[in-house]
Amino acid sequence: MFTVDIHSHFFPKLSRSQGKLLDSNHGPWLEIRKNGKGMIMTGASEFRPVYDACWNAERRIEEMDRCGVDVQVVCATPLLFGYSKPPKIAHDWAEMINDMAVDLCSENSSRLKPMAQVPLQDVDLASRLVTKAKADGHVGVQIGNHVGDHDLDHPHLIEFLQHCAREDMPILVHPWDMLGNERMNGYMLKWLVAMPAETQLSILSLILSGAFEQLPMNLKICFAHGGGSFAYLLGRVDNAWEHRDIVRKDCPNVPSSYIDRFYVDSAVFSLEALRLLTDVMGDRRIMLGTDYPFPLGEKEMSSLLRSHPEFNESQKLRMLGLNASEFFSIDFH
Amino acid sequence: MFTVDIHSHFFPKLSRSQGKLLDSNHGPWLEIRKNGKGMIMTGASEFRPVYDACWNAERRIEEMDRCGVDVQVVCATPLLFGYSKPPKIAHDWAEMINDMAVDLCSENSSRLKPMAQVPLQDVDLASRLVTKAKADGHVGVQIGNHVGDHDLDHPHLIEFLQHCAREDMPILVHPWDMLGNERMNGYMLKWLVAMPAETQLSILSLILSGAFEQLPMNLKICFAHGGGSFAYLLGRVDNAWEHRDIVRKDCPNVPSSYIDRFYVDSAVFSLEALRLLTDVMGDRRIMLGTDYPFPLGEKEMSSLLRSHPEFNESQKLRMLGLNASEFFSIDFH
Repeated sequence: MFTVDIHSHFFPKLSRSQGKLLDSNHGPWLEIRKNGKGMIMTGASEFRPVYDACWNAERRIEEMDRCGVDVQVVCATPLLFGYSKPPKIAHDWAEMINDMAVDLCSENSSRLKPMAQVPLQDVDLASRLVTKAKADGHVGVQIGNHVGDHDLDHPHLIEFLQHCAREDMPILVHPWDMLGNERMNGYMLKWLVAMPAETQLSILSLILSGAFEQLPMNLKICFAHGGGSFAYLLGRVDNAWEHRDIVRKDCPNVPSSYIDRFYVDSAVFSLEALRLLTDVMGDRRIMLGTDYPFPLGEKEMSSLLRSHPEFNESQKLRMLGLNASEFFSIDFH
Repeated sequence: MFTVDIHSHFFPKLSRSQGKLLDSNHGPWLEIRKNGKGMIMTGASEFRPVYDACWNAERRIEEMDRCGVDVQVVCATPLLFGYSKPPKIAHDWAEMINDMAVDLCSENSSRLKPMAQVPLQDVDLASRLVTKAKADGHVGVQIGNHVGDHDLDHPHLIEFLQHCAREDMPILVHPWDMLGNERMNGYMLKWLVAMPAETQLSILSLILSGAFEQLPMNLKICFAHGGGSFAYLLGRVDNAWEHRDIVRKDCPNVPSSYIDRFYVDSAVFSLEALRLLTDVMGDRRIMLGTDYPFPLGEKEMSSLLRSHPEFNESQKLRMLGLNASEFFSIDFH
């Protein structure tokens, strides 16, 4: 079954001095260690242990072959977004990272497809870079789910989304810069609690604010990690919309009626959660996503979806690859 | 089928001057309006529209009869916790609210069971008040899921939980004082996004910190709103525990193995979510909870659980009442 992983990351071989282009003290870079291991660093601090699949196309293809993944869409990681930096610096940085993504994917261009990043703090620069990235071969753009206190319903971000729709550039929304930081020291709680809340917040910001009413139907937008807590909590949201005027005041239709306006990936890590996600979103709105090759990714890429006892072949065909073909308007074969 | 709602709220007829006992500017009180309507106020500001079921036992019984709810466990609401106040003030306030709960429930003591609150910022005062509340007829104690930056794994809070276990006093953990406040203006996002994240955070704080290893097996603890996002995101947490040393360092067993250490209520507002909750937690760990009579509660109390097409009679018997009988050690009949 043709299989496309739409949510995978790379981390380029950034030197410490390259990292300083973004931040002179805490710039992100890669310390390559022995035996294919490495450490993502921020300045002098260790950020996350990784291995060579982050920067080595050959290793990726090996693992994709092992797991039966035909194509991977490859994007950077939120640590590299630079949204808090001056726009011009973030723009030039994004261009450099985007070129590195193209380089990595050019090693096997039928199997690896690059996705760009943009300086989302500046809608004009970000929009121009989307246009350029598309011309350079990027199949989509990854954005963070918010810029400072601005969620996706902020006028500037709506303008950016409208630009992407005009350019027919698909968007992957990735949670980052997690709320409740001060309450989540240790145990990766920021990734386990706050990330799924961030993603739910950004979907709800589009629904409840009425932003979807201003966005064209052809906008292609996908939320990472199965849309975070969104699908599970949708009943709570619908109930609130029914019973509180302040919930529905800017949202003309019941929240669950907006599920045909966006996609989610399948990175939810349990059969029960993936079943609920499919029950709520439908099998046309879910695309395989693994979060590979990071520690919290799916180790046996695609196995959760592929082995699900409650999905039939046609559902698997859709979620493993067909939906991705439509989302990216690419015949991957 | 005998039906016990373990998560319902009351709001006593507090006058504005009584509210000032807790906070001279923003003290909570009840403005009773026409036709059985009311407004929970904080000082001069409107906080939440309510109706007389909040303070009128007769009205509650009418609605319980209509919905087939035999017994309701009734607790205050987080607005009344007072955890940020001086301990003595919060203690005396809690005593007053607890007495009001007993008064309300005494109007129909076989149908209405009071649950106490305590000044959780002071473990000694809180523990003493638990003992007194039990003697006064409270069947359990409601606590907030954190006190400032202290989650349930803080040594003081573990000590409190241990005291409750010794006293055989069941606990309902209610989310409150929501994280990410500054990002959630409007649309009740604090209730829709941050509350379920708070509850997940507090369950994970007990699991990942190793706190459950220090707590006795007979501790009776239940988390509101189906445990927030916990059940849906448990696969993500297990995957993180498997693959990151920093997630498992204080937690000797895989997170999903701790689901027999706590209960959740059923207030999830969708058939899909309730099914997932039951798949993950099992039908012995879920008790009917409605969040009645607040605007985000279940209007047709117990109907979601009662009408679920995928539950058999024995599962419904357990979740509608039998589990609650065991949890509270009460033969409600």
